[in-house]
Amino acid sequence: MVTLLENPLRTGLQQERTPEPQILVIFGASGDLTQRKLVPSLYQLKQERRLASETAIVGVARRDWSHDYFREQMREGIEQFSTGIGLEEVWQDFAEGLYYCSGNMNEPESYQKLKAFLQELDEKRGTRGNRVFYLAVSPKFFKPGLRQLGAAGLLDDSAKTRVVIEKPFGKDLGSAKSLNRAVREVCKEEQVYRIDHYLGKETVQNILVFRFANAIFEPLWNRQFVDHVQITVAETVGVEDRAGYYDTSGALRDMVQNHLMQLLAITAMEPPNSLDADSIRNEKVKVLQAMRLADINNLDCSAIRGQYSSGWMKGKPVPGYREESGVNSESTTPTFVAMKLLVDNWRWKGVPFYLRTGKRLPKKVTEIAIQFKEVPLLIFKSVAQQTSPNVLTMRIQPNEGISLRFEAKMPGPDLRTRSVDMDFSYGSSFGMATADAYNRLLLDCILGDQTLFTRADEVEEAWRVVTPALTVWDAPADPATVPQYEAGTWQPTEAEFLMNRDGRRWRRL
Amino acid sequence: MVTLLENPLRTGLQQERTPEPQILVIFGASGDLTQRKLVPSLYQLKQERRLASETAIVGVARRDWSHDYFREQMREGIEQFSTGIGLEEVWQDFAEGLYYCSGNMNEPESYQKLKAFLQELDEKRGTRGNRVFYLAVSPKFFKPGLRQLGAAGLLDDSAKTRVVIEKPFGKDLGSAKSLNRAVREVCKEEQVYRIDHYLGKETVQNILVFRFANAIFEPLWNRQFVDHVQITVAETVGVEDRAGYYDTSGALRDMVQNHLMQLLAITAMEPPNSLDADSIRNEKVKVLQAMRLADINNLDCSAIRGQYSSGWMKGKPVPGYREESGVNSESTTPTFVAMKLLVDNWRWKGVPFYLRTGKRLPKKVTEIAIQFKEVPLLIFKSVAQQTSPNVLTMRIQPNEGISLRFEAKMPGPDLRTRSVDMDFSYGSSFGMATADAYNRLLLDCILGDQTLFTRADEVEEAWRVVTPALTVWDAPADPATVPQYEAGTWQPTEAEFLMNRDGRRWRRL
Repeated sequence: MVTLLENPLRTGLQQERTPEPQILVIFGASGDLTQRKLVPSLYQLKQERRLASETAIVGVARRDWSHDYFREQMREGIEQFSTGIGLEEVWQDFAEGLYYCSGNMNEPESYQKLKAFLQELDEKRGTRGNRVFYLAVSPKFFKPGLRQLGAAGLLDDSAKTRVVIEKPFGKDLGSAKSLNRAVREVCKEEQVYRIDHYLGKETVQNILVFRFANAIFEPLWNRQFVDHVQITVAETVGVEDRAGYYDTSGALRDMVQNHLMQLLAITAMEPPNSLDADSIRNEKVKVLQAMRLADINNLDCSAIRGQYSSGWMKGKPVPGYREESGVNSESTTPTFVAMKLLVDNWRWKGVPFYLRTGKRLPKKVTEIAIQFKEVPLLIFKSVAQQTSPNVLTMRIQPNEGISLRFEAKMPGPDLRTRSVDMDFSYGSSFGMATADAYNRLLLDCILGDQTLFTRADEVEEAWRVVTPALTVWDAPADPATVPQYEAGTWQPTEAEFLMNRDGRRWRRL
Repeated sequence: MVTLLENPLRTGLQQERTPEPQILVIFGASGDLTQRKLVPSLYQLKQERRLASETAIVGVARRDWSHDYFREQMREGIEQFSTGIGLEEVWQDFAEGLYYCSGNMNEPESYQKLKAFLQELDEKRGTRGNRVFYLAVSPKFFKPGLRQLGAAGLLDDSAKTRVVIEKPFGKDLGSAKSLNRAVREVCKEEQVYRIDHYLGKETVQNILVFRFANAIFEPLWNRQFVDHVQITVAETVGVEDRAGYYDTSGALRDMVQNHLMQLLAITAMEPPNSLDADSIRNEKVKVLQAMRLADINNLDCSAIRGQYSSGWMKGKPVPGYREESGVNSESTTPTFVAMKLLVDNWRWKGVPFYLRTGKRLPKKVTEIAIQFKEVPLLIFKSVAQQTSPNVLTMRIQPNEGISLRFEAKMPGPDLRTRSVDMDFSYGSSFGMATADAYNRLLLDCILGDQTLFTRADEVEEAWRVVTPALTVWDAPADPATVPQYEAGTWQPTEAEFLMNRDGRRWRRL
């Protein structure tokens, strides 16, 4: 594919990007992700005329579905979880390109059958052997799937074929490394697209624009002016129907190693030389390499876990984590994690990065807050109560935006100051909803732009950072030792201590 | 008065400031300023319980008014130009302290009579000889008035007596110096309160708070990051009924030497050691001393004058300046001035400060805009049209506030950036109107806080800066050589050139 033969990354930077004809093969076609996210996103891209007309989508799963049944399922998904079908003829055109091919991920025959079918489709739709294999399946199928794809010779042409691997990428450093080895055995890194859907969010990409398209923030973006950084990813939901997976995984694996580490890396990275995928990912790896838990020998000072106990959400009583169906009543799996990280480089030496994420917290919110240092000399001290330091907040979701807290004079003849906010709201400024992360990621993948996908070394570094906590928390422990927080409250007191010990406080959100 | 004997300036910094009993003597009591501004402001202070109950106000003017007639006049003024009388008993209490004493500013007897009356009042109301003499009269009476006050021994007690001098303070450097000499002959600098009502504006005082109560702006506030500064004071009105005064004065004297110079000084000054009056005024003088026209030998590159010609305002035709009644049809007096100034100090060397002010401009607006430099490397260039540099705007009036222009990512799968604003609005944040400048200035004067009044050396430095332009523009010239701008437009083309020559543009407001 031309764009890959040339510089595949540049294409991601052109204002208008036109994809090649392509077959998208989705493994796990009968699953939730496919019906709720992937196909609805692809349909939106279709509506926006961002797909080549030849594009075909082939769903693969065990069940014995017909093409038409698959199409019905997908139509339902679009109607239920997306903006709907819109023009019927657009759907008809899209549906014609939808196919189903039953198969078992562990059986070589399935891949031979698939291979034949894809060749057939190449003839029929003119997709020129361009293929994206999307592994929307349980992690346990990643390795076998890759091996089989390789064995069937489906990944040979590195210029025409790509593989998308869903999260979680490994369950610890060891398994991530071995998965990366399995990847390398069958294809090149330039063919691999590891999904972290946070990278698809407009507001996350905007962090790069905010930092590097503006001249006035970067000079302040370092240890000289920044006191500390707080990153919060708070959910109101509990474990829901994912108990089976979640209880073996937990907040550290489910949120911290991927999403929070990515937010931290983009916030703390050095300016890249250019916007191409490897320039950016090199900088992200560099900062991840410099990252460590504040105190590995004393976890209480650098990593706190917690579990929600029963409590109230929006006036309704909710069960504690251990009472949720499918959760071991003795479980020590964290539903909350707070961490204090340090970045040992010239820019950030000594500046703590505090992360927290959890389920059943009072509010659904994701934000990055840069808290700056105090003024060197407070000449207003005699008149005002202690002024508060400046805070720059990047709201990732909801009500996406950026605000800057600063001190202003209160009206009146006496010289008093008060903290006020300068605010920018994505919604009110652009008057358009920010697109779903999967739209962007699928399009980039189709276009061969790896910028928003995590590279092998990135994933491994992120795992390395959290390993010390992982090791301790995975070890069998008396459930009584796991700090509890009441559902609907912000964090266990142990997490408060993590900050108070440093003379700081978690932001009230 | 205690506060003066101690540190009179500190008092200005206490959160609660309680004034001493006092007599305010207003010369020019029959004039507009007294009826529209001074007494209404004093009445508001009364309503806010900021005046000592003993306080007396004595109006002095030629006309032969009675106390009661004066009170009626003042009541009218309050009802017409202020928030009204409110509680009748408050007015009664205030009115009792209102007195009138007819007199001629050139006749010694008048001052003897006044002196006697004031002593009488001291007995009657217990004002302990504390006096403020407010010269709300035509500038030609400043000198004689001061001499007579001195001769009558009314200014002897420097701890108890103050003099307030209205603008304009001189008509050029020479006259300002001689007026300052006249002041020094009869009193000490610590007794003198030179009015520049711009300094009484909340938003102007907020510039100090914004700069020095926040840690993140000061590091950017210098030649390394600032490309240039634009200060605009635009009026929509024409010369109105002030032609007699205005045609002999003009925009340079009426606006630039005082208001714009003050705004510039506060924006460019170094951080003071403390907030006391002299610390701040020392810094303002320092920066004024470093200030000069960009090119004294070539005025076209540093100072442009203009006159409005007939045009349209809000859909109505309006006459040109020379057609206004009372204006010489051959007048060369500028109703518009644009200037390029440089500040030769370590912080600002090479950063141009562009000022503009004029009558009959499209919009009433006063703002200071700090325009920052471009990003050092535009890594988004390949995807976005040239990004625009950051601009910090301090809106002095109307819709008082501060906004910061920066680049953000436009929603959508293509990486495009656009300029957006972070905004802070005084009104919506504090939900209260900012008080009239005179309230604040009168209160400070009563309290003995000189911070917001201009010192002798400040005024002289400001005059020095504008002198080169003044000299040329005062000289008789062919009226045809004065650039014209149509009423309702922003500026004469010559003023455009002033910027374009440097590859810059005036902000569109």
